[in-house]
Order: sequence, then C-alpha cells, then structure tokens
Amino acid sequence: MARTASLSGFPEWLPEERLVEQHVLDSLRRTFELHGFGSIETRAVETVGQLLRKGEIDKEVYGLSRLQDDEGEEAKGKHDPHALALHFDLTVPFARYVVENAGYLAFPFRRYQIQKVWRGERPQEGRAREFTQADIDVVGDGELPFRYDVEIALVIAEALGALPIPEFRLRINNRKLAEGFYRGIGLPDTAGVLRSIDKLEKIGPDKVAELLKSELGATDEQAQAALKLAGIKTEDTSFVAQVRSLGVSNDLLEEGLNELEQVIEAAVKRVPGKVIADLSIARGLDYYTGTVVETVLVGHEQLGSICSGGRYDALASKGNRKFPGVGLSIGVTRLVSRILSQDLAKASRAVPTAVFVALTSDESWGEAQDVATELRSRGIAAEVAAKAEKFGKQIKFADRRGIPFVWFTDEDGKHQVKDIRSGVQVDADPATWTPSDEDIHVQVVAAPAS
Amino acid sequence: MARTASLSGFPEWLPEERLVEQHVLDSLRRTFELHGFGSIETRAVETVGQLLRKGEIDKEVYGLSRLQDDEGEEAKGKHDPHALALHFDLTVPFARYVVENAGYLAFPFRRYQIQKVWRGERPQEGRAREFTQADIDVVGDGELPFRYDVEIALVIAEALGALPIPEFRLRINNRKLAEGFYRGIGLPDTAGVLRSIDKLEKIGPDKVAELLKSELGATDEQAQAALKLAGIKTEDTSFVAQVRSLGVSNDLLEEGLNELEQVIEAAVKRVPGKVIADLSIARGLDYYTGTVVETVLVGHEQLGSICSGGRYDALASKGNRKFPGVGLSIGVTRLVSRILSQDLAKASRAVPTAVFVALTSDESWGEAQDVATELRSRGIAAEVAAKAEKFGKQIKFADRRGIPFVWFTDEDGKHQVKDIRSGVQVDADPATWTPSDEDIHVQVVAAPAS
Repeated sequence: MARTASLSGFPEWLPEERLVEQHVLDSLRRTFELHGFGSIETRAVETVGQLLRKGEIDKEVYGLSRLQDDEGEEAKGKHDPHALALHFDLTVPFARYVVENAGYLAFPFRRYQIQKVWRGERPQEGRAREFTQADIDVVGDGELPFRYDVEIALVIAEALGALPIPEFRLRINNRKLAEGFYRGIGLPDTAGVLRSIDKLEKIGPDKVAELLKSELGATDEQAQAALKLAGIKTEDTSFVAQVRSLGVSNDLLEEGLNELEQVIEAAVKRVPGKVIADLSIARGLDYYTGTVVETVLVGHEQLGSICSGGRYDALASKGNRKFPGVGLSIGVTRLVSRILSQDLAKASRAVPTAVFVALTSDESWGEAQDVATELRSRGIAAEVAAKAEKFGKQIKFADRRGIPFVWFTDEDGKHQVKDIRSGVQVDADPATWTPSDEDIHVQVVAAPAS
Repeated sequence: MARTASLSGFPEWLPEERLVEQHVLDSLRRTFELHGFGSIETRAVETVGQLLRKGEIDKEVYGLSRLQDDEGEEAKGKHDPHALALHFDLTVPFARYVVENAGYLAFPFRRYQIQKVWRGERPQEGRAREFTQADIDVVGDGELPFRYDVEIALVIAEALGALPIPEFRLRINNRKLAEGFYRGIGLPDTAGVLRSIDKLEKIGPDKVAELLKSELGATDEQAQAALKLAGIKTEDTSFVAQVRSLGVSNDLLEEGLNELEQVIEAAVKRVPGKVIADLSIARGLDYYTGTVVETVLVGHEQLGSICSGGRYDALASKGNRKFPGVGLSIGVTRLVSRILSQDLAKASRAVPTAVFVALTSDESWGEAQDVATELRSRGIAAEVAAKAEKFGKQIKFADRRGIPFVWFTDEDGKHQVKDIRSGVQVDADPATWTPSDEDIHVQVVAAPAS
C-alpha cells in the first residue's frame, strides 16, 4: 500500500489498485465457474452461538448492537448465543447454509464464495481486520468420494496459476497419515502431537522434541520418529517409500499414504511444479480429518499461507445426517496487498475508459454522445467531455485520467481519433474503429520477475 | 423468496437465485464501466462520528464491539464518536474516501461502488437489514458542470434498462425549482415546505395543505400554489410552460427550470419513455441541492423507490475545498428480491457447468479430466464424475444438478455427447465441439410480461 489506511487493519484501495483486485477476483471466479462451482453468498452476520460452536477463540469476533436499541436486543448482552456478530471466515456460515438449505441443494454441492470477513485481531503485515476470502468447497450428503480431494487441489492450483503472482507451492499432507503414524509409534494423543508439530517452523525441532517428551510423555525415540516424519518433503510420490522406510505399520497410516499419493500423483501430472507433499503441515486445531493444505508464495514465505484448507468429514450435520466436505480458502486481501506493496502487477490504466470524446462546441454534446453510444455498443468504454474547452485542455484532462484515446469530430462531421501516448492521430469511423486488444480493456499484467 | 430467511431481514439466495443476482450485478458493472465509471470499495466499517455527522437517525446503525475486548475499546462506549459501526449507505463512506484520497484522485472523479450496507430497521417487504446497493457518482474538485446531472440520469436509465425488470420511470425534480418557487410565493422556510410536500403520497393533498397552513403559516392561496406545483408531471419539457403559467417569478426558480429542462430534454431524446418530470419529488431531509431523482417500477409502486439520488453541492469538504457531486443509488437487493418473489426472471440452469464428463471406468478419470481441460480451455464449463457408476446413474446425477450435456468416451477413445433434455447423442471432438450460445453460459431471461 502506498498510503496508510485511515483505520488500522481496514485497507482501502485507490481506483488503479482496485483494478488489480478486480482482476484477481474475476480470474478466480472464471476458473471456479469453468470447473462447475456455483456462487453463493451468506449474510455477513451470524449468531454468536453459531460462530463459537466450533470452539473458536472468541476474542477475534466483532459483536453487533444497534446504536439506539429499543427492542431489548441490547439486553441480551453480547455473549448471549442469540446476539449477532460478524462472520470471521466463510466455512462456518457455509456449514449453516448447507444444513438450512439441504432440501434445496443437489449433492455433491459445489460452491465458491467470495466475501469479506472480519477479525478483531491486532493488525500487522498480511493480517487485516477486514479482508476478502475466496473459498471453494464440495460437500456431500452422507458421503463424499475421496476423488474430490484430488480435484479441489487441482482447481486451486489452476486458479492460483492464473493470477499475476510469483511462484507458489501447495504444501499438502494428510491427517490420517500423520495420526496413523503417531499411533503406530505408540503416541495415542495424536491431537497433542499435531499441536506440537505445528510449532516446528516457529520453535525448531529441538524444542518440539522437548515438548513431545515433557507434555506427551514421548520417549526420545518416539519424538525423533515424529520429527523424521515431519521432515519428509517431496515433489513427487517418493514420500511413500521414505515413510515406509521408517518401519511403522498402521492401517490409518496406510489409508493416509494412499490418499496423499493419489493427490500428489495427479498434481505432478496435471499441475507440475505447483504441489509438494510436506509431512510437516498440521493445520493447528482445525477440524480437518484427511487432506490438509497450506500454500506458500515462493520468496514471500513470511507472508504466511495464502491458501489453506482440507477435508472435513463432519463440518455440518443435521440430526444423524452428516455432510462431509473438502475445501480450500484463498486469502485474497493478503495476496492483493502483497501484489500492490511490491508492485508484482499493475493495471495498464487507472480508469475503464478507452476513449474520451472531446467537444468542439458546447452545442455538440449530443453528437458527441452519439459517437460514445456507438463505441459503447461495440464494447468500447467511452466518456464525453462536459465542457468545450480548448482541445489542448481536453487532451490534458484525458491524459490526467489515464485515458489513452481522444476523439474529435469537426464541424463538417469528420471524425479523428488521437492516441495521446504516441500523438498519432488518424481518421476514424465510430461504427468501425476499434482499439487494439491491449487498449480496449484495462489489462493487469505481472511485473517481470526481478 | 421461496424460503424464509433464517434471520429476519438478512436474505440469502439459493444457487439458482444467486445466478439472477450475479446477472444483475454483472449487467450494472458492464454499463457503468462502458460509461467510464471505475470501481472502488470502502471498508464496511466507519467511526460513529463519521456516520452521524450528517444528522442521520442513529437507531438504524449497527455498532461493533469485539466480543472479548482486552484493549479497552469497549470502554469507549458505543456512542463514542471513535467507536466503530457498519455503514448504512455508500454515500457517506464515499465522501470520506474522496476527502482522504483527494491527492491521489483525478477530478471529476467517476466511480461506481457495489457493496452491502446494514440498517437495523424493522424488516418488511422491500426493506432488509443487510442489502446491496449499486451507486454511481461523479465528484468534482471545487466545481462540477451541470452536464453531469444530465449524464448520470442517462447512464442509470441505460443501466436499469439492461436489467430483466418491468418498465420503470425515473421521476426527476429539481430542488432549486421547488425552493425558488416557494420563495417566489412568499414561503421562505423551503425545507419545511419540502418536508410537507414529501408526505403527499402518504397523506394526500388536503392534509398537506393543512400542514402548510398550520406549521408554516401559509395562506390558503400559498398552500394551493405549492400543491399545484407538486401536481405537475410531464413526460416531456412541457412542465416548463405549466410552471410558468402559475405566474411565479424568482431567479432560483428559473435556474431550476432550466436545469430540469436540460435533463428531460436529453432523456426524451436518448432514453425515451424512461424519465418523467415529477415536481412532487422532494427526497425528504437529504442533502440534495439541485436535481433529485426517485425511480418507480411500473406495477410495483408499493415497493418504493428502486433508485434514488441527486446533486449535492457540498457532500464532502476539506477545509475550504469543496467536492460537489451528483449520484444515484440502485437498491439491488430490493430489485432482486422482487424479481425472485414474482418470478420476473429466471436462470436457465442452477449451475455454471455445461458438460458433465462421465466415467467409463474408475481408471479413466485422468482421460476424462483431459476432455474437461480441453473444453474449459475453450470457455466451456465442465466437471468430471467422481465414480464410474452405471451411465444411467451418471446421467441422472447430471440431470439432478441441471447440467445440460453428458460426455462419454468409450474404451476405444470414441467421444460422444448427449443433450439430456432432448436425448440426442452425437459424435463429438473435445477440441471443437461447442454448445449453442444459449447453453454455453447460464442465461438469465426476463419472464414474458403477463
């Protein structure tokens, strides 16, 4: 960001920055829809009871109250489960939506959802209080074939690959693999082990080993085995042999190995270089039950994960009916902030307008509008001058707004169009003249890698 | 709405309803951008001080507080001017944005803004607590030529005209005209007169006359003159002669007559049948200083205005620097709710997917993905079956999701595609086969007028 947000943690973009964000959002939408994901939006507001059901730490949540309350809502108190609050992600609201609308949806239900979410955390680089997420999920009714785990990783790799961002890597692991392994080496508190392993990047292997020993009663051998597993990172399916060489045997481990192998195998073939098997990925305390994913932007590792998620076998349920799902969430604001702050991509101009129609006289406004209407009917964005100032002044006006072409019509009705970057002026017919593909719409292009 | 929102006043759409909303939003965006309006978004959150600056009734505003507050924000109290609250429209945040970013914007600044806003009002038909507005404004630095008032009315008429909605009418008046007239007949409290005239549709002319007499000390003659003015409604510029025939003379009145004449003259020519001069339009207590607009959906008058706004000479200011503007705001949720509840338009299918690629065997998933990739590379949305069930079951699956085509590849690599609506199955090549224009993308079409 060139400027400082006037409210810390609530970024706002200038028009030319917003064009970059729009490009990112349009590109994501296009990829998602090409893969058959339909859009939904959920309300920004959930009940506090709904939001805290999954045990999320409540300090991140913004509660709502009407400034002048005359219906006793305030009396509820903001911790009342019926009180209203802003959603902090799109997964919890989506789970509620699926349960509420199960009778109207065709399963497996594929949806994308691009919306703002709010978290009252302390703002820092890569962490805003209001930010946009772009989620895709596939949710089944009762069961959901594992193949969707493979598919969703491919869709996200394709979606991220179409954005004007540096190289990225999906780091993929599988909870079954990790949990089966821990059980196989005699550490039954698998959640506890995952919690410690999750701290690997922050505190290093020695301290993790200490934690495993002091908090989970692991032997030195067990701690070293868990760390060896977490140390496995491969760009192909060779992780399978590496895990097997550790000599641990467990059914859940086998299931996890098989699942992760399928994901990596398909990714190596279909999106080469975008995915690695990374057995250190734990995804903290989240509700994942199989595949887990984090995504790093190469060269921007300190930004944190730009896309995370995985498989959850019971995100939502309605009585005995369970809705397993698999999904991934892209941190759009985190990505766009980085693109803008490091000039990774730029809009070719600051406005949608391609042509500024100049006025010869104040009375010619109607004819100028006719020219603009003709251009617009062919998809060329055009605006008309409001005043018949000197041509030099009108050209300067267009230039200041970043508009590439100025249109002139003389008193005999002869049309000319000037490319104000090159100064080249040519005869033109409003019914046929068309700017180049680069100029007709705003282009957002990645900066050449430095 | 087919269903009841699970939280009153917070509507959510099913996927096929969301497609209608997306169509409306895409269409508005397209028209706005063709006319050179660029997108901005402002944060959802403003300070209470900013929101209440214009004297808005504070009972409509949702205040925010972090559920677990450990930084003393709560201590501020929700009426503290630095406390945070959700915006209730897009005009007040836009004014703040213009002032904060004036140094980075090129004036006159043309922007559109499509976002959710929140009002804690009692929900009723056409009035939600969370809803989407689509605003366009042109804002000048110091001055803004009147011509933009004409232009913005034309742009909005074109934008609404491109939507799948019934006939609409922009009802346009001018504050200068009304205020000049009231002064001309000796009623200097023009705001008071406007307030009474604003009640005309609700309480009728007799009660408005009483109000004018009892509250503003108007004579019977003055009250009748004010009512006569408000009774003038013309589809062309003949309102000018009708006003003149009332025999009132005032400079501001003349200025207003001239301005309104310019708007109506251009509209009659460029968007015939969409606009009327309606001298009863007052726009309540708002900050308008010239052109004022309300919009009625013909046959749905009780829905209220679907698009309102006008000219404001000092929406924003920064020291001595003033930013006059003119803008209009479309009530997207109000429109979409009505489209859906009355089946005014429908999506041609419930999902973006055009082609469902069936599996011959579980092992053929990779080849099926190749077919889908080929189709997607040509802009055809495709998804692949997750399981090699019997073809009948796979066709039923596609049918249930509303997908029109199913793709089959036999063991010899021969491709066929079946239109499951007609049952017609033909040979096809994934590199060249293309659905009809009606089928390649979801279409949203207006229902034939009944």
